[in-house]
Amino acid sequence: MNEDRFAAEVTVIGFDGDDTLWHSEDAFALAQERLADLLAAHASDAEVLARLQEIERRNLELFGYGIKGFTLCMIETAIEVSNGTVPVADIEHLLGTGREMLARPVGLLPGVAETVPLLADGYRLALITKGDLLNQESKIARSGLAGLFESIDILSEKTADSYLQIFRRLEIEPEQFLMVGNSEVSDALPVVALQSWAVLVPYPLTSMHELGFSFDRSSPRLRILTRIDELPAILSGAEGPSGGTA
Amino acid sequence: MNEDRFAAEVTVIGFDGDDTLWHSEDAFALAQERLADLLAAHASDAEVLARLQEIERRNLELFGYGIKGFTLCMIETAIEVSNGTVPVADIEHLLGTGREMLARPVGLLPGVAETVPLLADGYRLALITKGDLLNQESKIARSGLAGLFESIDILSEKTADSYLQIFRRLEIEPEQFLMVGNSEVSDALPVVALQSWAVLVPYPLTSMHELGFSFDRSSPRLRILTRIDELPAILSGAEGPSGGTA
Repeated sequence: MNEDRFAAEVTVIGFDGDDTLWHSEDAFALAQERLADLLAAHASDAEVLARLQEIERRNLELFGYGIKGFTLCMIETAIEVSNGTVPVADIEHLLGTGREMLARPVGLLPGVAETVPLLADGYRLALITKGDLLNQESKIARSGLAGLFESIDILSEKTADSYLQIFRRLEIEPEQFLMVGNSEVSDALPVVALQSWAVLVPYPLTSMHELGFSFDRSSPRLRILTRIDELPAILSGAEGPSGGTA
Repeated sequence: MNEDRFAAEVTVIGFDGDDTLWHSEDAFALAQERLADLLAAHASDAEVLARLQEIERRNLELFGYGIKGFTLCMIETAIEVSNGTVPVADIEHLLGTGREMLARPVGLLPGVAETVPLLADGYRLALITKGDLLNQESKIARSGLAGLFESIDILSEKTADSYLQIFRRLEIEPEQFLMVGNSEVSDALPVVALQSWAVLVPYPLTSMHELGFSFDRSSPRLRILTRIDELPAILSGAEGPSGGTA
């Protein structure tokens, strides 16, 4: 075994769910556009989004992540920005937007349907996601991928400590673990800090919760890919451009 | 060891959280009263509650259990019952009610603070609860009891299958497990069906989700107590009135 190879010791690959395996943030972005349209008479798009972000931050400790809390924040924003003059029909519309977001079909990202089964052949797979419990379970079930994962965790936050708990349960050392995700804060930073391995596959849209965060991307334990289907080559040592061999 | 004793083989005791270890339903009941007051001009209390219950049922598959979904349902009920004429200030009030429910201090039920540490001395303890992930974690942390539990599960539903998964993880057989809770549907029925043991401690208020459910209480693997601090005597064989020795 070539110990210089990226992630050579890895036996377990962890995957994030939202915006790594399936689309999520695009629905939030669409809902935000609708909210800004509803409030166009009261404030600019940028002002509406800034107020929504402030209200989401204020409620984060109580609501956590997920669509139900986001819907409550949209309603609170509509009331605040309109100084209480938003029509009740618009609030009803926002309730409907939340339900639509929860009910929408699971859309896998490009390459996911081929890559995850391929990796399941050589590695133990873990799904490590956050958000509303029932909504995440429902998406996992509908993704068609659930059977490929040995372990599934739905967390309120992904911290170094929550990763360590998973390592203990799976009986692995940190260097045997690789995390694949789109979030620097949740999927890369705590994992690299533990001397595990991380692969970032950025999503075209960034969650409001990630804005203003900066992260040193120079760790030898981190790779950044464009699509998830570049991962098998990285792991087999046949690296593409980001490994510097092109 | 007296094998005829109730739950003689038990090594792990599982506890429900809401309305078993700490108060929960009382806050829902208070919020429902407030909602009925807000809508008094449009419908009777009973009509408001019936409509709320119908809306909760309709949304259960999308929202699951917990305060955030309940708050969305209260807003939906206010709009429907008032035919869209509810003042926006009342909707703001309902949003505030939801936030208050999420933020309120954890109030342990009578006997819990003494009984759980006592049982931790002779048994492995598991906390098995359902609701909003972050809200449940926050209540567990604030309860002062978290350190007594070997394992903590926050589930979207408590089914026979979810109990079996916990047994596997804890490496026990069904007859080594006793569940203590207030809910027939979640805490007693699936557990007794698995040939485990159950102790029901009914809460004075019943969740809307439990209404209309009936359950055979005659199983020898089930006891019904008034307070949780009657449990140690039941387990040691010094049974009170419900064991028929009084």
